[in-house]
Amino acid sequence: MFMSRSVVRRAPEIAILLCFFLLAPAAGLSRARHADLSSWNDGPTKKAIVEFVRTTTDKASPNYVPPAERIATFDNDGTLWAEQPMYVQAMFALDRVKALAPQHPEWQTQEPFASVLKGDVKGALAGGDKALLEIVMATHAGMTTDEFQQIVKDWISTAKNPVTKHPVLEMVCQPMVELLAYLRAHGYKTFIVSGGGIEFMRPWAEQVYGVPPEQVVGSSIKTKFEIRDGKAALVRLPELNFIDDREGKPVGIYQHIGRRPIAAVGNSDGDRQMLEYTTVGFGGARLAMLVLHDDKAREFAYGPGAGLPDSHVGTFSQALYDEAKQRGWVVISMQKDWKRIFSPGH
Amino acid sequence: MFMSRSVVRRAPEIAILLCFFLLAPAAGLSRARHADLSSWNDGPTKKAIVEFVRTTTDKASPNYVPPAERIATFDNDGTLWAEQPMYVQAMFALDRVKALAPQHPEWQTQEPFASVLKGDVKGALAGGDKALLEIVMATHAGMTTDEFQQIVKDWISTAKNPVTKHPVLEMVCQPMVELLAYLRAHGYKTFIVSGGGIEFMRPWAEQVYGVPPEQVVGSSIKTKFEIRDGKAALVRLPELNFIDDREGKPVGIYQHIGRRPIAAVGNSDGDRQMLEYTTVGFGGARLAMLVLHDDKAREFAYGPGAGLPDSHVGTFSQALYDEAKQRGWVVISMQKDWKRIFSPGH
Repeated sequence: MFMSRSVVRRAPEIAILLCFFLLAPAAGLSRARHADLSSWNDGPTKKAIVEFVRTTTDKASPNYVPPAERIATFDNDGTLWAEQPMYVQAMFALDRVKALAPQHPEWQTQEPFASVLKGDVKGALAGGDKALLEIVMATHAGMTTDEFQQIVKDWISTAKNPVTKHPVLEMVCQPMVELLAYLRAHGYKTFIVSGGGIEFMRPWAEQVYGVPPEQVVGSSIKTKFEIRDGKAALVRLPELNFIDDREGKPVGIYQHIGRRPIAAVGNSDGDRQMLEYTTVGFGGARLAMLVLHDDKAREFAYGPGAGLPDSHVGTFSQALYDEAKQRGWVVISMQKDWKRIFSPGH
Repeated sequence: MFMSRSVVRRAPEIAILLCFFLLAPAAGLSRARHADLSSWNDGPTKKAIVEFVRTTTDKASPNYVPPAERIATFDNDGTLWAEQPMYVQAMFALDRVKALAPQHPEWQTQEPFASVLKGDVKGALAGGDKALLEIVMATHAGMTTDEFQQIVKDWISTAKNPVTKHPVLEMVCQPMVELLAYLRAHGYKTFIVSGGGIEFMRPWAEQVYGVPPEQVVGSSIKTKFEIRDGKAALVRLPELNFIDDREGKPVGIYQHIGRRPIAAVGNSDGDRQMLEYTTVGFGGARLAMLVLHDDKAREFAYGPGAGLPDSHVGTFSQALYDEAKQRGWVVISMQKDWKRIFSPGH
């Protein structure tokens, strides 16, 4: 092969650059600038993370784990982004009721839709799970998966938190984005395992968290294959398929991944079984963490387990708090452990 | 940074070596020795594969596809390995009935088990789907997922095809192993999408095909989370969860991957909707292929669509054959397109 003199002289740099471009998509190095945990304060929590990664990736360590088995699972709501005053997907559903109302004149008098359209969320949800399910099915089903993906993309690019007025995508926890990138930079495969809708997260999770669609696990409704308007499509049906919450999380993890995680991060009672599945009865190094929302000044404060106010959204109960202590799960204090909560500038 | 003179001189080679080691686990380069399609005869089929990969990976091509969207899905039975005279998983189920019989004295007189134990497979299956389901549930449920994984690993390491007497793991199609590796070497993520059981394939698919558990999609039974004997476990329940066949294949693909494949390979009527989902109504380059088992001398010959004998296992019907022609799907002739069928030595 002919190479000019200057190419030969610059070959090492070229080869290293080549390395970078080849590796970037696979290892998520486009987000590697965050992989330094710089938003984490020094202290026992950060130390536990760094030590876990060191001991599982050092070939000389008795806790060494081969790359293929480095599976880390993260809850989404309240773990990777803010979940107060209500789940972002609930905001989406309510907004969609308003957007679809012109096509549904009957909603003006029919509950729970009538209350939603009057702006009375409490009234709408007075009908309990049945009302909520009706709202979800009316707003999440009936279209193809391609159409739903576009609806979510359009909505999320402008949606704002009703309390802080910040875009919801800017209320993503910066320390968690760094932790995801840090794990990936050390050969971990990072998955989202959320009680939220799998197709509500997939359209933006890659860009925001560096987690591709095939590494998102969540709740789902059924779909049906058909050729619609000359295109092969999956149509979303108004029927629950899977609830990826509580005891459903280990089930969803195994169904999608086929491997037991060795690291899992959550923030509420819905994550208990995921952390148990990751840790209970297994030797070797395990990282199990729960985010405690104890920072009223910078975010929200809730979690009766730690003496903070109760919340229907993302309950961190006394029982979970006790279990975390007993099993040695790390409780992350947003106040003490995080230098900043959201992206720089917020 | 200090570097000795010889290190500086050898830096390009070192950087390239480094590249190789860094890339190897991600891109499956451990199997790259197979990535040359050397078991494929030159001709229109091989040319279609090479041209598809060239046009989707060349940045200057109008059909260029970014790496994240390079999704390729492969059927397993009859596509990646032999499926005659019966599905390998059916052999497994029958063997498990025999292995479990001492714990089930009632099976000596109870159908369909009594027929299985007498070696009368036809008699056992005379009860249709109900009988088959009973055999599957009796042999695939009741244990934890960890236990089932071990049972499959132990069985498959010694299982032999009843006709050829070759180990079933040596009746893996070498040209397909090469095609999987070839696609991965060009930035494709390869998935198995099988009507067979997801947990029956995962324990060996990584070693045999280079496809990790999280990239296997298949049929499944339900599981339940519990702490059993002090260990967090998923217990396999005798209840169907999902049938990943026919119209179920696009559903399973979207549920697991969240992206539409741009390449799909199958061999029977069960793969029709997967190929439609990959191709119908979408522009850009698509690779859709069906393996025709037309090589009685080296494997088996069946496929009424192409004038070959019919088969209950892996039917390639006239309707599928016609659709393949109409839509321009590639029909792979094992006889003409494959230099060898199984690993060298067979």
